[in-house]
Amino acid sequence: MKTTAVIMAGGRGERFWPKSRNNRPKQFLSLTSDGETMIQKTVKRLLPLVDMEDIYIVTNAAYTELVLDQLPDLPKENILAEPCARNTAPCIAFAAAVIKQKYDDAVMLVLPSDHLIGYEDIYINTLKKAIRAAEQGKNLVTIGITPTYPETGYGYINFGKECGDTYEVERFVEKPDLPTAKEYLASGKYLWNSGMFVWKVTSILADMKEFMPDIYDGAVRIGEAFNTPGFEDVLVKEFYAFRSESVDFGIMEKADNIYTIPGSFGWDDVGSWLAVERINETDDDKNYIEGDVISIGSERTTICGGKRLVAAVGLEDIIIVDTDDAVLVCSKNSTQDVKKVIAQLKEAKREELV
Amino acid sequence: MKTTAVIMAGGRGERFWPKSRNNRPKQFLSLTSDGETMIQKTVKRLLPLVDMEDIYIVTNAAYTELVLDQLPDLPKENILAEPCARNTAPCIAFAAAVIKQKYDDAVMLVLPSDHLIGYEDIYINTLKKAIRAAEQGKNLVTIGITPTYPETGYGYINFGKECGDTYEVERFVEKPDLPTAKEYLASGKYLWNSGMFVWKVTSILADMKEFMPDIYDGAVRIGEAFNTPGFEDVLVKEFYAFRSESVDFGIMEKADNIYTIPGSFGWDDVGSWLAVERINETDDDKNYIEGDVISIGSERTTICGGKRLVAAVGLEDIIIVDTDDAVLVCSKNSTQDVKKVIAQLKEAKREELV
Repeated sequence: MKTTAVIMAGGRGERFWPKSRNNRPKQFLSLTSDGETMIQKTVKRLLPLVDMEDIYIVTNAAYTELVLDQLPDLPKENILAEPCARNTAPCIAFAAAVIKQKYDDAVMLVLPSDHLIGYEDIYINTLKKAIRAAEQGKNLVTIGITPTYPETGYGYINFGKECGDTYEVERFVEKPDLPTAKEYLASGKYLWNSGMFVWKVTSILADMKEFMPDIYDGAVRIGEAFNTPGFEDVLVKEFYAFRSESVDFGIMEKADNIYTIPGSFGWDDVGSWLAVERINETDDDKNYIEGDVISIGSERTTICGGKRLVAAVGLEDIIIVDTDDAVLVCSKNSTQDVKKVIAQLKEAKREELV
Repeated sequence: MKTTAVIMAGGRGERFWPKSRNNRPKQFLSLTSDGETMIQKTVKRLLPLVDMEDIYIVTNAAYTELVLDQLPDLPKENILAEPCARNTAPCIAFAAAVIKQKYDDAVMLVLPSDHLIGYEDIYINTLKKAIRAAEQGKNLVTIGITPTYPETGYGYINFGKECGDTYEVERFVEKPDLPTAKEYLASGKYLWNSGMFVWKVTSILADMKEFMPDIYDGAVRIGEAFNTPGFEDVLVKEFYAFRSESVDFGIMEKADNIYTIPGSFGWDDVGSWLAVERINETDDDKNYIEGDVISIGSERTTICGGKRLVAAVGLEDIIIVDTDDAVLVCSKNSTQDVKKVIAQLKEAKREELV
């Protein structure tokens, strides 16, 4: 059976302000010193497994040009441009309906566009196992990440009995508090929910028909209109009519026969500026520095320079990000509060900076 | 007797980089929210005591235009432009010789251009006492500052017997270490050396003739050439021939009949970026913020914004100074290390940033 990949690239990535902006969210940024953007890396690491013509990017219509620029080898028709954001369930339904038109059935990998993978061979092998499991009739397969610490910012997957290369999923749970996360870790029965899914197109569409028939019906109409002159009108009409729904709430927490494969391939969701020192090499003082920077006696400090000189003197555990029109200076303890800057900018109607 | 003032404005002020640059040192910057530059404030606060036509600015020739711009009411001939920097003794000798040509004798206030005074009435009254003492024959009078803590960055004046409004100076001492500074403070017999002097032109010239005859002779030749066509040539020739000498080493540590008047007028030498929060009003979280800044949860932080947005998130005891071509982010413990940034820039031959 054909293997296809759907890369979800509609996110806004507010936590990477001021580099990420409404017109260039995180997946279109390079946060590593090699200069490749997140989405370029995501596509490149899939190529041992999926042909370029079978890779689909679902993104906001506003980012179509960015995708074309950054992925010039991708067929233009593989960019599935959402007229508006409706969370992951309509996004996946749209992609599944389009792939159904092309292949009738196929394995479909659903992957975020803005995560990093340290060990790509292990990643590919893990996906291969998931593909095989889906082909052999395991309804929905999700890649779980073996936790390394009690993270409270992720959802968890509680797994049960081993079943071939996979484990049966008992339930999906929301982001826990710290004591609960510690219990999860100690139990050995919980994995992080990475948002990576593997299933046959017919499997996910069958579950959508059962658990979210409204979205399913809209997606079918979109799929039928694909490659016809009326497509754009249908897409806009159906998408605006969709309610916002995540695939986790809408399907994964309701469906049966869900399986997980534990992955340990150096996964990083690159969730905030703190990630930059994790995913790049640091100097002897544990600084990560790029761009035109003079550092005097700074330690454990991340500096992403822009066009101007950044001088960092005697800093500890600080993040500096310089851009043409804004500079962020942030304590490492406060990276989640970067969102509050954006909130203030919106309130002040300074959209050019958001 | 006429009272004149000589304002020394030749300094470079490296500690205020990146706002201070070779082409715009500290005395020509505004570091207070009222927008007035240091030298403008220095001149303005003298006007109750000295006529504008009797105020002289000794500065590097490169800064003549800056002085003209910032002090449009100052007679152009009162800008004494040094062809090169030779420390304070040649600077004061030059000014004394010029004033001698004009008035034969006069009281001469010698004042830094880059300090701040909180209580200007008290300052003026203190200077009046010093002027009267000089007129009544006290040879050299220096304004000492009553210390408020054991500062190790200033020289001290050890004073003895009271003598009218003044005290006899026992000796000038160099910057002490902390235990010594504490002893000085506890003794009640030491004042900070503020670099403010009051004397008659004839007094200082007589002492220069005795203790630094080479500089005296050069200054006399400069004075004789003043307002003649050959002045510029004489000035350049004599100034390049001067050795570098401070008035503290060259005169104050050698001369007799030195007196001091203790001043308590909110003096601040504005010695580093730390001064900005002292000399301006801070907010409830003890931040001083100017310019286009969004601060989220920052405390005791000084931010001098430039043309771009500065976002400060969760910072404590940090100084941020933004300019068009460089941004400084500095721990409050490390403000003295700003000089090291300049040293690195010079080493890298990036003079445009120095």
